[in-house]
Amino acid sequence: MKIGIIGLGLIGGSLGLDLRSQGHQIIGISRQENVCQIALAKGVVTEASTEFKALAEAEIVIVCTPIAAIASTIKQIIPYINSETIITDVGSVKQPIVEECSQLWPNFIGGHPMAGMTQSGIDAAIANLFTGAAYVLTPTAASKPENIAKLTAIASELNAIPYVCDAQIHDRAVSWISHLPVMVSASLIKACLQEEPDTLQLAQILASSGFRDTSRVGGGNWELGVMMAKYNHQELLRSLLQYRHNLDEMIALIEQEDWQNLEQTLQITSAARPKFLNK
Amino acid sequence: MKIGIIGLGLIGGSLGLDLRSQGHQIIGISRQENVCQIALAKGVVTEASTEFKALAEAEIVIVCTPIAAIASTIKQIIPYINSETIITDVGSVKQPIVEECSQLWPNFIGGHPMAGMTQSGIDAAIANLFTGAAYVLTPTAASKPENIAKLTAIASELNAIPYVCDAQIHDRAVSWISHLPVMVSASLIKACLQEEPDTLQLAQILASSGFRDTSRVGGGNWELGVMMAKYNHQELLRSLLQYRHNLDEMIALIEQEDWQNLEQTLQITSAARPKFLNK
Repeated sequence: MKIGIIGLGLIGGSLGLDLRSQGHQIIGISRQENVCQIALAKGVVTEASTEFKALAEAEIVIVCTPIAAIASTIKQIIPYINSETIITDVGSVKQPIVEECSQLWPNFIGGHPMAGMTQSGIDAAIANLFTGAAYVLTPTAASKPENIAKLTAIASELNAIPYVCDAQIHDRAVSWISHLPVMVSASLIKACLQEEPDTLQLAQILASSGFRDTSRVGGGNWELGVMMAKYNHQELLRSLLQYRHNLDEMIALIEQEDWQNLEQTLQITSAARPKFLNK
Repeated sequence: MKIGIIGLGLIGGSLGLDLRSQGHQIIGISRQENVCQIALAKGVVTEASTEFKALAEAEIVIVCTPIAAIASTIKQIIPYINSETIITDVGSVKQPIVEECSQLWPNFIGGHPMAGMTQSGIDAAIANLFTGAAYVLTPTAASKPENIAKLTAIASELNAIPYVCDAQIHDRAVSWISHLPVMVSASLIKACLQEEPDTLQLAQILASSGFRDTSRVGGGNWELGVMMAKYNHQELLRSLLQYRHNLDEMIALIEQEDWQNLEQTLQITSAARPKFLNK
């Protein structure tokens, strides 16, 4: 199958490597000529171009640009592609993208392969990045079943596990396990910084693995954090307000010195956590 | 030097191993005869006993019992020890212990060697557990300088780094970096559990390293969590209320779609985190 990949970074490049090794013809598009050259040299693509017209014969086009560029990219490729071409993306938020892009292209189906690393760019692209990872697809009621089937087949070829669900359910789920933790964790660091200098300094000296883990996602990539809040605004707010409610309950238990119910709460969270741990 | 260690678990046992290898005579006390036997067999102690009278000649006694038993243990050993004997403890909260135990014994100085592992008990005791770890000592204004010096020397012999500070400053610092993270993290798990079953199940499937790290201390040892709240009650509440304030600010930024200030906040937390990472 001819597959177009627009944006040859970590995700686009890694998709190319694995799909090429499955025998597909990969047409890579990058705005930068030197990225096209690296992609060819790394064996990520069969052909590479800086121009969208190279996508003319692609059956599937995977848009791997940052979220903000997805819709405008689709508008630009429409003149060159066949009306049957399936377009999908790899954005980590789905509802706003699906809403806009389904209007632009009836054969658009949102996608989110849930793999990532700290590094980015074509140089970070590796084989088997998606092995064992969830690959969420968010079709609408109007999506053609055969298109969904083609994309789940692609996910399976990547050794990822396809999950088909509503875009809003996806955004809600990732808000709980990915976007809310960033805000919870960043607020922890921010709160510590309000302490007076001497005590803060001692806290910094005494901090060990517990603080390191709890603060990791809140002290990470801030551009990603803003992007999550911007694009998953409603779901993030919903989970933040629920979180604040549970935090208030916890504070009340401690204020009231209700150790029995605090114990029960911590037993519940302790028992619940393993269900969130995969692999 | 003759050093008594009461409570031969992970901390007491590991202290014994390292201090014995420094040439000290270690008198180990455990309520359980079989623990005494294991301690002798492992080389943790020079002699072991189930009776406090064995401590008669100890220059320093390190109480390694759970927090709730520290003061009552000190009351029980007082009849057997020399008035010059230094008593210290290893509890992870200091203010309430120092307050009570200094009254019981003028030569009491609170201590907190900040090492620990998931395991517990004499079988988990290992050499070099304290290498590079902070060892906090919390004397009062009435503490004798030579006693503080003897304990900082012990900390140095363990290859730990001694910090001498006020008990309240210690409790404040550990609230920020150890006790507050537990409550923040547990509230995150609890909030997720309020989601309706299908979305929760998807969230559990999609959860990866970000959620794993942020939820770790809140889904850990619940007995330890209750103990922190119980003994560090005031400081934990103080940091929780500051945290809620910062969380509310974060929620307001997202409600107001103030991406510029959210970006600034996340840049601050991102820049601040490395100062909390030791080693």
